[in-house]
Amino acid sequence: MLLQTEVAENRSLAEERVRQIVREELEKSWKKDPAARKVAIIASKGTLDWAYPPLNLGAAAAASGMEVSIFFTFYGLNIIHKDFERKLRISPVANPAMPMPIPMPDLVLALPGMITFATRMMRSRFKKQGLVPIRELQAVNLELGVRLIACDTTLEVFGYRPEDFIDGVEFGGAGAFLSQARRAHITAFI
Amino acid sequence: MLLQTEVAENRSLAEERVRQIVREELEKSWKKDPAARKVAIIASKGTLDWAYPPLNLGAAAAASGMEVSIFFTFYGLNIIHKDFERKLRISPVANPAMPMPIPMPDLVLALPGMITFATRMMRSRFKKQGLVPIRELQAVNLELGVRLIACDTTLEVFGYRPEDFIDGVEFGGAGAFLSQARRAHITAFI
Amino acid sequence: MLLQTEVAENRSLAEERVRQIVREELEKSWKKDPAARKVAIIASKGTLDWAYPPLNLGAAAAASGMEVSIFFTFYGLNIIHKDFERKLRISPVANPAMPMPIPMPDLVLALPGMITFATRMMRSRFKKQGLVPIRELQAVNLELGVRLIACDTTLEVFGYRPEDFIDGVEFGGAGAFLSQARRAHITAFI
Repeated sequence: MLLQTEVAENRSLAEERVRQIVREELEKSWKKDPAARKVAIIASKGTLDWAYPPLNLGAAAAASGMEVSIFFTFYGLNIIHKDFERKLRISPVANPAMPMPIPMPDLVLALPGMITFATRMMRSRFKKQGLVPIRELQAVNLELGVRLIACDTTLEVFGYRPEDFIDGVEFGGAGAFLSQARRAHITAFI
Repeated sequence: MLLQTEVAENRSLAEERVRQIVREELEKSWKKDPAARKVAIIASKGTLDWAYPPLNLGAAAAASGMEVSIFFTFYGLNIIHKDFERKLRISPVANPAMPMPIPMPDLVLALPGMITFATRMMRSRFKKQGLVPIRELQAVNLELGVRLIACDTTLEVFGYRPEDFIDGVEFGGAGAFLSQARRAHITAFI
Repeated sequence: MLLQTEVAENRSLAEERVRQIVREELEKSWKKDPAARKVAIIASKGTLDWAYPPLNLGAAAAASGMEVSIFFTFYGLNIIHKDFERKLRISPVANPAMPMPIPMPDLVLALPGMITFATRMMRSRFKKQGLVPIRELQAVNLELGVRLIACDTTLEVFGYRPEDFIDGVEFGGAGAFLSQARRAHITAFI
């Protein structure tokens, strides 16, 4: 009788205890949430200023131990093109939020040479502020193990060939992005 | 006595075994992570080039079995407007990253007719490269079960009425987006 | 013997029952997915129209009980600058998707004064439609507990000082963003 009670008690104790154990393990599990270690970025813009956010975010995440993939698509292919220095330009007309050294009437912003001037100004501003040049940011990302993936569909639309891109670049389609992003808490379309 | 020991052993065995079972189930559970099957996209831009990313990503995700919602807001409402062919235009001035067939001084890019020319050029480039036209991409998304949701708040700001949109479009606000996105690993603001 | 069998039964019952309990707890746990309550937004654009999406989304999410952080970086710093009313302007040239009251040839869009005109038009359109002004949206976000974080790296690049920003703004780098975003289902780069 005593033993029967004990068995019954054991059984009911079990349920309470089991739920407690499950909650403990779940608590630990949420902290180890694999999605919290993964980052999938789409880089879709091809101007000098917009080349920074994906490369900066990628490097920062990788430096803090996260697994990062950056997918370059559309105009973003410029960022990893061998000729990126010529391709990454800035239009001040396109962006009234760009800080200009001197206030300028809108038409002046559309004058010939202004894109070149704006690009130079931005480059020098970035340099003066100690911002890493794009070439170094590309290298830092690759060294930290960030996967730089060129979208093979848009690549063709823009008339590029695989050999047009810097060393270390991989190639893949939307499927490659989705398989990373669906397991990542941080997904950013830049 | 023997039985008492067995009960005690059973109890301690239980804990070890229970933790093992919990970890097994957790492992399986992470693989079935419901958030890995959900995609919530905001489409906020209204030019021809930027109409592609949300519709392409939506179709690709739905084709691989994911549950997709695209919320069209702000300028993105153009993409599902009945008159989308006239509304989705491209400004080359706005985008120095847009590949032009011939290098052009910046001012020329602002000449009357250039938006029309740039839009035609892009359309023909997309066509030559075998890219699906927007009309077909809209249909593909609807066939694959992608929910196309027009933001009812910005709709009013832009002076549109519900009947201005293509068939199959639903209507909803920020709440509709949040309820999808908070359960989705892939959230993209395009 | 009877008791021995019972112990054995108890043990095997346990496994079945334990798995059932684990699944019940997991089911509950997924519903309480902590990532479903967190939102991390990057606001990177500095024009009047693009000031709305991060502030609207932030307020809507906070109002439905979510924990929200908005990181202002690059041109997005304009949105929380004390002088935001002068800084948040709109260029119609940059955006052929912007609805203009009268169709206009492209060059006219680049004439001096057009940015000012477009900004005024947008402000009045927003006002007529009952859209909350930026100043109120900033206040609503702070009242709802949304954290407004200025990126301290780009702050320096743009020549701003901490005292240039509205009251209630915090300061932080990419690390601050990553630590929030890696635990959040909703991450948006706007």
